[in-house]
This record gives sequence, structure tokens and C-alpha cells, in this order.
Amino acid sequence: MKAVILINGELKVEDIQSPLLAEGEALIKVLKAGLCNTDMELIKGYMDFEGVLGHEFVGRIVEASEKDWVGKRVVGEINISCHECEMCQTGNSKHCLSRQVLGIQKKDGVFTEYVTLPLSNLHVLPSEISDIEAVFVEPLAAALEILEQIRIRKEHEVLVLGDGKLGLLIAQVMQTQTPHVFCVGHHPRKLTLLQKKGIQTSLEGQKWGQMFDVIVEATGNPKGLSEALCWIKPRGRIVVKSTFHGESKLDLSRMVVDEIQLIGSRCGPFGKALEFLKKRLIDVIELVDADFPLEEAQKAFELAKKPETMKVLLTP
Amino acid sequence: MKAVILINGELKVEDIQSPLLAEGEALIKVLKAGLCNTDMELIKGYMDFEGVLGHEFVGRIVEASEKDWVGKRVVGEINISCHECEMCQTGNSKHCLSRQVLGIQKKDGVFTEYVTLPLSNLHVLPSEISDIEAVFVEPLAAALEILEQIRIRKEHEVLVLGDGKLGLLIAQVMQTQTPHVFCVGHHPRKLTLLQKKGIQTSLEGQKWGQMFDVIVEATGNPKGLSEALCWIKPRGRIVVKSTFHGESKLDLSRMVVDEIQLIGSRCGPFGKALEFLKKRLIDVIELVDADFPLEEAQKAFELAKKPETMKVLLTP
Repeated sequence: MKAVILINGELKVEDIQSPLLAEGEALIKVLKAGLCNTDMELIKGYMDFEGVLGHEFVGRIVEASEKDWVGKRVVGEINISCHECEMCQTGNSKHCLSRQVLGIQKKDGVFTEYVTLPLSNLHVLPSEISDIEAVFVEPLAAALEILEQIRIRKEHEVLVLGDGKLGLLIAQVMQTQTPHVFCVGHHPRKLTLLQKKGIQTSLEGQKWGQMFDVIVEATGNPKGLSEALCWIKPRGRIVVKSTFHGESKLDLSRMVVDEIQLIGSRCGPFGKALEFLKKRLIDVIELVDADFPLEEAQKAFELAKKPETMKVLLTP
Repeated sequence: MKAVILINGELKVEDIQSPLLAEGEALIKVLKAGLCNTDMELIKGYMDFEGVLGHEFVGRIVEASEKDWVGKRVVGEINISCHECEMCQTGNSKHCLSRQVLGIQKKDGVFTEYVTLPLSNLHVLPSEISDIEAVFVEPLAAALEILEQIRIRKEHEVLVLGDGKLGLLIAQVMQTQTPHVFCVGHHPRKLTLLQKKGIQTSLEGQKWGQMFDVIVEATGNPKGLSEALCWIKPRGRIVVKSTFHGESKLDLSRMVVDEIQLIGSRCGPFGKALEFLKKRLIDVIELVDADFPLEEAQKAFELAKKPETMKVLLTP
């Protein structure tokens, strides 16, 4: 089968062997997949990953150790846990100390024709959610993780830093909690999408006349954190979503004096993401810029790399 | 009256005028004061402060706009708030946007004979607490602030990084919540005090065989944060207490992937500190290394600057 493989920092489309099904797993035919910023960082060396890229997908089960799963259309959680370590035993299996992560860590990803995942990672899709929408379940869950971590009240003023793919989802998620949502970005086309929903936006460089209770740092840039510190109220909370190769600088005394909290935030609840999509609380279709056949993965990556691009899809 | 003044980065003992009493304030004769690491950082340029240093003290009221306060022995909260700004109006007067801070920001401190403070900042001392113990109310309250910010359960494993004056108080405070308290420091003499109380200790450089649920970073050193990140469990919480002149480096991706929280922590509840001292839950007397007359402030600062020194007191 064809697969998009990262080897020695280079991306190749190659023929590889189909994966073998193990006990408790499903063999899934990939219907559609999405490119994420993390894929771009992996190419730069983040996580030292080599193998098949891709972790956002929708597929149909063609084989499974439990037969009633066969034929189901599914999305899959990306962390494959051991169910035995301290983290797994204390209900934090997403943080399993020996986990594999689909297309990110010790596990081939979904930019290919078939993939295996444990049945316990899968969620059956309701018919109301299209294949394209389903590709957004994973990043939307990541945006929704913020609501699992902090409580946002309707009087809170929330600033989202970054108008990337994730930033656009996060801004919409924040708007389900408070009408006071602001987004700073680089791209008028993207910010216009948010403006239409009543989210206040600003191009970077323009100044706000206010401070914020909550800031979500989703710039993907080491400077994002310093910027967040400029706009956060005392006792405010900065949720950090950016992962990249490298270190950030931090004015620790400012954090202490103003008792600011930084909250690292990663993968989130798939069930809640499915509910939000089913109820049409979040628009995702308008975020899609292109859909390439798997063979044209190089073109897809070229387009996705451009800062003004939103979501790029791959169809095997 | 004599006062220890910081001007142009230099410390001087000079004669200055006594402060004038304003409406709602008390004029307090300083009985005893304590040197804090923040005083050392102020000398290095932290906060750009100039004026009378000192914020840890016990005193007796000699004059007050409400006469029944006269004669009371008191300790004083260090943040003087406007009671009008957004932070004050939302119950965060400690974070008042135009606050003065005793001996730290726009307000002369306590290394002198008389000081004024608003009556609303003062707490009358119970007779069970000696003058020397009372000097520890402010730093103990800062240590107790951690319990206002996060819940520590008795099964949590807590690491305190740093065996400075504040670290020694924090380790004791943590021990009131969980038996699993560990402290890493530089000074065998200080660590021995904690060992006697059943707190496990280690000299920096020695390795632990475990990770921690909660780490309190009280090293006063820009490298403390990176060290904390080495020992924190996924989903763990790092409480940051260090204030210093300069920036720290932070591996933001590690924070995101492991969903770690950083919590800046400053001043805390005086009422609770008084209760802890009255109930003898925390030992402070053994932390005192010396008590100098105010005139010998230079000697006191020389001694306090040495890393192995614990608390140094000044008596006007």
C-alpha cells in the first residue's frame, strides 16, 4: 500500500506492507486524513519521529478481533496506552509512560491506506457527521481539552493568540463559554471567518486596550509566551498549546508577582468533540483549503506549509 | 530616625524624618524585622526600588486614627491597595494595579524605627507568638499561599527545590498536608533541620529514583525551573516562588505534551500563618542565625548574603 513516510527529515511516498491485525485491534481503511502543524514540526525534527506520518483521520473498519465492529465508520484517539503503568492506573492513560502515539511516537500514522488501532481507541461516527468533518474530531478534541482543564465563566475575557488551524477551532470553542472572545493573528482571510461569528480580531502589531482573564497561546512560535505575558491580567491563566522544536524564554518573576498560571494542554475528549460537531456548535468545513489524493502528498505538504493555508486533507 | 536605605544600588544607614500618619493608618514602632532574599534581589536592581528596605516585621502601634488600636502588637500585610481598581473590586486587592508594596514598591519599608501602614493591613498578635516568631508571619504566609492555590492530598509526593529561608518554611508547610515531602538543597546544616522532622533531603546533584506530583521551585535561580521539569510527573504542578532579576528558559513542548501546570505564587494569608504559629505546626525559631541592631545593618546584610545563612534579624 502507498504511504507518506518521514525518513532522515525527508518526506517520501512509498509502497509499504499493510499492517497486521493484533488481538483487541481493528484494521481500518483510511477514508480521509488531515495535515496538522505537528506534522510540519515532526519534519523539522520534533520528537525524532521516523515512519508513516499523520494522526487526524476518519476510516472504516475492515477487520477486527470483535466482529461487530467490522463495517463501522470511526475516528481514533491517538495515544495507545499500556494500561499498566502508574499513569494508566491512575486514570491518566493519555499520559501513559510507555505510550505509542499515532504518527508521532513509535507508531505508524494514517497518511496511508490501512492503519491498525486498539478498539478501545475508536469512536463510531454518527451519520450526521461527514467524512470531512470527522477529520476535525482530533484537533477539535484538543481545543476542547481546555474546557476540561479550566473553567471559563461568561464574564471572562479570553484572548486566543494565533490564527492557525488550531487557533481557529479554539476561538470557536471559547465562544461557546463567553461572548468576550478575541483573536490575534497574521492572516486577514482567517480572521474574517472569526469576525463573521462575532469574535473580535486583530492583526498582530495592533494593540488592545485591555488585559485578559484567559489567554490561549496557539502561535506555534517561541515568542508567543512572552506576548501572552504582556496581555494577561494578574491571577490570569495562560493555556499553552504550541509544540515546537526549541526553548522559550520566560520572565518568571512576572509570573510569581502576578500569580499567573501556565497550563500545558494536549489531546482532548473525542466524545465531546463528536457532540459539538453533531450539534453544529463549531464550523469546520469552511476551514478546508484543499483535498489531495495520497499520491500527491508532496503537493499537499507544500501547500500546508504556507502560513496562510488552513486545513489540507489527504484522500487515499 | 535611623533607616536602612537603598540608593543607586548602595545600602546606607542614614537619619531620615519619621513618617506622618494619614487617615485610616497606624504609626508603628518597629520591634524586630527580618531580612529576606527579595531584599538581596532589590539591591541587585529587582523592581528598581529606592528607599527604606524591609517588609518582614513585628511592631507596636504608637498612634492610630482609631484610638483602640494604640498599644497593640501587630504584624502587617505588605500590599497597600487602592480599593478602587478592577483587581481590588474583584476581591484581588493583593494584586491592586496601583498598589504600593512595603519596602519593595513605592513605599518605604521597615528597616527603621517607625513605619506607617493602613489599619486594614494589620493583624494583632496573640500573646503566644513571640516577637521573633512574628517576624516569620509574612514569609510563612507566602509559603501557605501554595495551599490557597492547589490542593495537596496525603498521597501526593511533593518536592521542594531549594533550602533557602523560604524553602525551609515551604517544606514544613507541605508536611502538614502529606508525609511524602522531599527537599533538594545545597546546605547540609539546613537539610539536617528538615531531616529531623522526617522530611527526606538530598544535596543537589544526587539523583532521585522517582518523579513528583507537586514541585515547589524556591531556588531563587533561573535554572530551578528546568530542574523542576526533570522531576515532575505528567499532569504535575510546579509552584514557582523564585523572584529574581532576569529570564528563565522553558521547554514549552514538554509542558504541553505532559500537560504540566506552572503556578506563580506570591504573598499569602496572614491569618492562617498566625494560626500555624500559634498551634506550633511550624518551627521558625531554629531558623534564626543572628539578630543585629539596626545600626549594624551592613554587617547583617553581609551575613545574610552568604548562601549558608538562614534568617538574619534587625532590631531598631
